[in-house]
Amino acid sequence: MRYELHYWPTIQGRGEFVRLALEEAGADYIDVGNGSEEEGLGIPAMEPYLSGEVTPFPPFAMPFLKAGDLIVSHVANILQFLGPRLGLVPNDEALRLWTHSLQLTLADFVSEAHDMHHPIASSLYYEDQHVEAKRRAEFFIKERIPKFLDYFEHVLEGSPKGDTYLVDGMLTYADLSLFQVVSGLRYALPQAMQRIEVDMPRVVILVERVAQRPNIAAYLASDRRLPLNESGIFRHYPELDE
Amino acid sequence: MRYELHYWPTIQGRGEFVRLALEEAGADYIDVGNGSEEEGLGIPAMEPYLSGEVTPFPPFAMPFLKAGDLIVSHVANILQFLGPRLGLVPNDEALRLWTHSLQLTLADFVSEAHDMHHPIASSLYYEDQHVEAKRRAEFFIKERIPKFLDYFEHVLEGSPKGDTYLVDGMLTYADLSLFQVVSGLRYALPQAMQRIEVDMPRVVILVERVAQRPNIAAYLASDRRLPLNESGIFRHYPELDE
Repeated sequence: MRYELHYWPTIQGRGEFVRLALEEAGADYIDVGNGSEEEGLGIPAMEPYLSGEVTPFPPFAMPFLKAGDLIVSHVANILQFLGPRLGLVPNDEALRLWTHSLQLTLADFVSEAHDMHHPIASSLYYEDQHVEAKRRAEFFIKERIPKFLDYFEHVLEGSPKGDTYLVDGMLTYADLSLFQVVSGLRYALPQAMQRIEVDMPRVVILVERVAQRPNIAAYLASDRRLPLNESGIFRHYPELDE
Repeated sequence: MRYELHYWPTIQGRGEFVRLALEEAGADYIDVGNGSEEEGLGIPAMEPYLSGEVTPFPPFAMPFLKAGDLIVSHVANILQFLGPRLGLVPNDEALRLWTHSLQLTLADFVSEAHDMHHPIASSLYYEDQHVEAKRRAEFFIKERIPKFLDYFEHVLEGSPKGDTYLVDGMLTYADLSLFQVVSGLRYALPQAMQRIEVDMPRVVILVERVAQRPNIAAYLASDRRLPLNESGIFRHYPELDE
């Protein structure tokens, strides 16, 4: 099966959570958004799905995954679909629901990380809401980042199979996504994260463990890993850091 | 199976999406948060789960559902779990993923409806962020409500089995949740919604169709249906309306 990942080009964004799972598993996939229009890829290849022109099941937004005739949208839903197929989730139903709930918590965390720099409207430039962003960032740094990371620290600490990975002692897509969130926050808020991470030793080790997995390490060193920038979800505006 | 719904008392909030599914199906359930402490219910009965004291699978937040020993958190995850058990989703895997993606879009819509009145921090009172809320509400009303509702209008319009319900011509939990979102927005922003709904005839008819289902109608007329108020997600602050 050759999977098609449909997502905006030039940014990691929400597509990156799907890329990490595909890369870890060594799956065959096309990154449609970053492909060239001459080869029938790029934005023109994705738009007919969003408009509903070519499917009665139009995604609300990107990313979405095409797997044969199937279209799956929303990062958490895509990962839940890919998990069993890529060996990135346990077989047990209860543990799959648990992994999905961790992913949905990460999805909320990602949305809050985005809204830190866009607290008024996604359609406005950052520059047109930077005053509100500064105020929101203070609460995000003081209250929300510690709350979310502390949660994952406790999940690792309490896991019946030990704190190597979040779920059942095996690597799941939720570990890959937690790696991505922490990496993004380190880029966006380096000073705040340096301080906060001191209290999250298990999360820090997990992030390093994911980075050192052979397929992930090779991916991170490749040009398929796009650099973080100020068009994505995790943006470095120094004035928002502490 | 007697299900236990764990959610904050006295508000509809995110728990309401789960209540509607349980009520439509006539399921046996306990609303733990709204129960009395004398009977071993109420907030003290829920907190040990959130703290991880009694489970290695602690939810990040409420609502969560207990089904025997199983704990499932996040509205969309709970509904995905209940869907097949309550007959509120098709059997086909592709259609289940599609229903889940509609639910996740509604989850994003709900978060934005909340952040309209809390654009800076959930931990602050509305009064301490009403200036920013007014600015965010303008964009939410002008851009986001139409974008979300227009999406569901098109999903209904394009559904291969007709526009009676969102998925495959059958009632699913996504229809119940869309009913809830529209009901909440009508309460929060009556003037804006009156104008916007004119362009969403299929959504309006669907909402009415859900309200008239016998079990839903009985539930809405009962005292189990808590009134909307200014502590929940959908709040009526007249100054935010158009």
